[in-house]
Amino acid sequence: MTNEVIDREAAAERLLSRSVAEVIVRDDLKKKLLGPRPLRIKLGVDPTRPDIHLGHLVCFRKLREFQALGHKVVVIIGDWTARIGDPSGRSVQRQMMTAEEVEHNAQTYLDQFFKVVDTAQAEIFKQSTWFEDFSLTDVISLTSKYTVARMLEREDFAIRYSQGSPIAITELLYPLLQAYDSVAIKADVEIGGTDQTFNLLVGRDIQRDFGLEPQNILTLPILVGTDGVQKMSKSLDNYIGVNESPNEMYGKLMSIPDSAIGDYFRLLTDVPLEEIDQMLAAAAAGEVNPRDLKDRLAVQIVTGLHDAGAAEEARNEFDRVFRQHALPDDIEEVDVARETPLISLLVETGLARSRNDARQLINGGGVRLDGEKLIDPEASVVLTEAAVLQAGKRRWRRLIPRD
Amino acid sequence: MTNEVIDREAAAERLLSRSVAEVIVRDDLKKKLLGPRPLRIKLGVDPTRPDIHLGHLVCFRKLREFQALGHKVVVIIGDWTARIGDPSGRSVQRQMMTAEEVEHNAQTYLDQFFKVVDTAQAEIFKQSTWFEDFSLTDVISLTSKYTVARMLEREDFAIRYSQGSPIAITELLYPLLQAYDSVAIKADVEIGGTDQTFNLLVGRDIQRDFGLEPQNILTLPILVGTDGVQKMSKSLDNYIGVNESPNEMYGKLMSIPDSAIGDYFRLLTDVPLEEIDQMLAAAAAGEVNPRDLKDRLAVQIVTGLHDAGAAEEARNEFDRVFRQHALPDDIEEVDVARETPLISLLVETGLARSRNDARQLINGGGVRLDGEKLIDPEASVVLTEAAVLQAGKRRWRRLIPRD
Repeated sequence: MTNEVIDREAAAERLLSRSVAEVIVRDDLKKKLLGPRPLRIKLGVDPTRPDIHLGHLVCFRKLREFQALGHKVVVIIGDWTARIGDPSGRSVQRQMMTAEEVEHNAQTYLDQFFKVVDTAQAEIFKQSTWFEDFSLTDVISLTSKYTVARMLEREDFAIRYSQGSPIAITELLYPLLQAYDSVAIKADVEIGGTDQTFNLLVGRDIQRDFGLEPQNILTLPILVGTDGVQKMSKSLDNYIGVNESPNEMYGKLMSIPDSAIGDYFRLLTDVPLEEIDQMLAAAAAGEVNPRDLKDRLAVQIVTGLHDAGAAEEARNEFDRVFRQHALPDDIEEVDVARETPLISLLVETGLARSRNDARQLINGGGVRLDGEKLIDPEASVVLTEAAVLQAGKRRWRRLIPRD
Repeated sequence: MTNEVIDREAAAERLLSRSVAEVIVRDDLKKKLLGPRPLRIKLGVDPTRPDIHLGHLVCFRKLREFQALGHKVVVIIGDWTARIGDPSGRSVQRQMMTAEEVEHNAQTYLDQFFKVVDTAQAEIFKQSTWFEDFSLTDVISLTSKYTVARMLEREDFAIRYSQGSPIAITELLYPLLQAYDSVAIKADVEIGGTDQTFNLLVGRDIQRDFGLEPQNILTLPILVGTDGVQKMSKSLDNYIGVNESPNEMYGKLMSIPDSAIGDYFRLLTDVPLEEIDQMLAAAAAGEVNPRDLKDRLAVQIVTGLHDAGAAEEARNEFDRVFRQHALPDDIEEVDVARETPLISLLVETGLARSRNDARQLINGGGVRLDGEKLIDPEASVVLTEAAVLQAGKRRWRRLIPRD
């Protein structure tokens, strides 16, 4: 074998193994990965949630591996399935997003997406391309191919049905419509989180019913958030956004619990698995400070999403602020009255979300004025010149007294 | 009150009581029946089954009662729901009938329908009027209004689901589509057999969801067939077709079991209920021959669907053949060989469906040649001149020997 053949074989093996939860059907997919025909790798995107975080990056990185082997990424903007909602069922039959909203959200998503994925090897479709003119005949044809019982086997449906929680008939359409996308674009592979396995399997069934070869499926593990416990998600506020500044990104990555370091390295970097195991072993033996591992992780990720210079600056800034307890360079300035009750001041300047929040910050010892801790929630602040008000570890305002 | 008011009140009361299984909501419907606004009374028709029998007549007669009170009948030709099939589920996603087939079957149905119902107070719609351009948006809107659990409460679905028999998702659309018909035509009332109650109730729900006042519902009892046991149906061959000849109709009505006489009078004639009770009591006491009651019944029904003269002739013909054992006038002639094995002869002439059937007829003593019973299944028939071959009580062929 030539070196190139050996390399491709190794790349395919890595694609199918690293950061992968399940592959259906592995042998078939491996053969096709190495075959001459460029495969069409489908990714469905919910345009109601255009904010991308590192959890999505796991998927984007995998798509890039497909592209490295010469395959094509096909993005589906789910402007129709977004109307139904999946899988919570809390808001069945949402309003149709306007074309402008879809366009805007899709563009926001894709701007972030193409930081990782090669735009030259990608196609983008909106579902409206085929669902705009989907007739009742088409619906009858599609729904005739699947039974109620099989659909209710989906775990969340099964739980809700057994608990007597309502499932609108529309919701049974969701997996069928997204499955039809695989027919429309002739997907060879569909990729998604482990929570999507059922839907991706419906895609296989429906493609077969429409006389196509069923797509292979590759599911990816779910990344935990910065809390190290729950799935990374915007609504849990434990996420790191792809669009965040180098400083924010670096700082948040330095804040993850040690237990998450391994997963973040495996899912978000190219560091070889053996090397990751060695690092973790060294940290466990007390030979390495976990903080140094997180620094390496953070530099790699910030470099990937911004650049090496930005990563270096973010590290320096972080060191200056946290190791040397210095102030950051770019503190926001706010005009304030010369005398203000402390609680009001915290709320006004946006350092506290509410008066209650302000009170808790003060009682928790998290409020400082020019480095001096303020502990009386009933105090007023009297300023004769500019001063820095700090709330918690990483938030400041430079107060400018006005007349 | 004037006489007219009293008459209308009595007619409404009769409409809501006689030959009625259930009325939802009775008080509301009665008020509207007597109100000034002409109501729209919906009847859904399956164009795959255009053959009408006396079972349908129960419904048509009830529609005529609505018309007598000034209300309008709205017939829906179910050319779209016919594609899905309800409720057996044996043949999900049938082919769409061609426009010609729908037209032909609908016309066949309506020709029979308008023997009873007043065409001047009726409107006819095909579902394609609104489903031809039904979009995926419309489907999503419609299916979002109903839950899977409520749909699976329908008795046949519940049974099939609990037995593990497949229910295609399409089948859940059936009740919703026919319910949408009630929205499209703004039905005030829907009428149907007791087996349609669930579907008619879905109509109420969906109308409400679309901001309309929910239709009232009137269900009718199911007529037993000439066997006196099972629902009258073409497939069970226990039916009397509306298009049958006066002789056939009269003869079949004379053949119903005595136990069915009461129901047939109540559901298919205007004879007052008290009078029917008196007749049945007299028959039970042995004071009246049930045969005479059936004659009255048969004459009334044949008169209604043909005319009094035809009924009189049918009665005379029946008497001649059955009471006096004479032959009917119109025996079909068949050319046959001069010598034929009896079994072949029965099959050839169409008197038996198969050789097995022929053998059973002979063994059962049901085969006669010119009135003489033939009991040997292995016999051959040798003819020198025309002769009448009889199978069972009411089927004959005049055999014409040919060279």
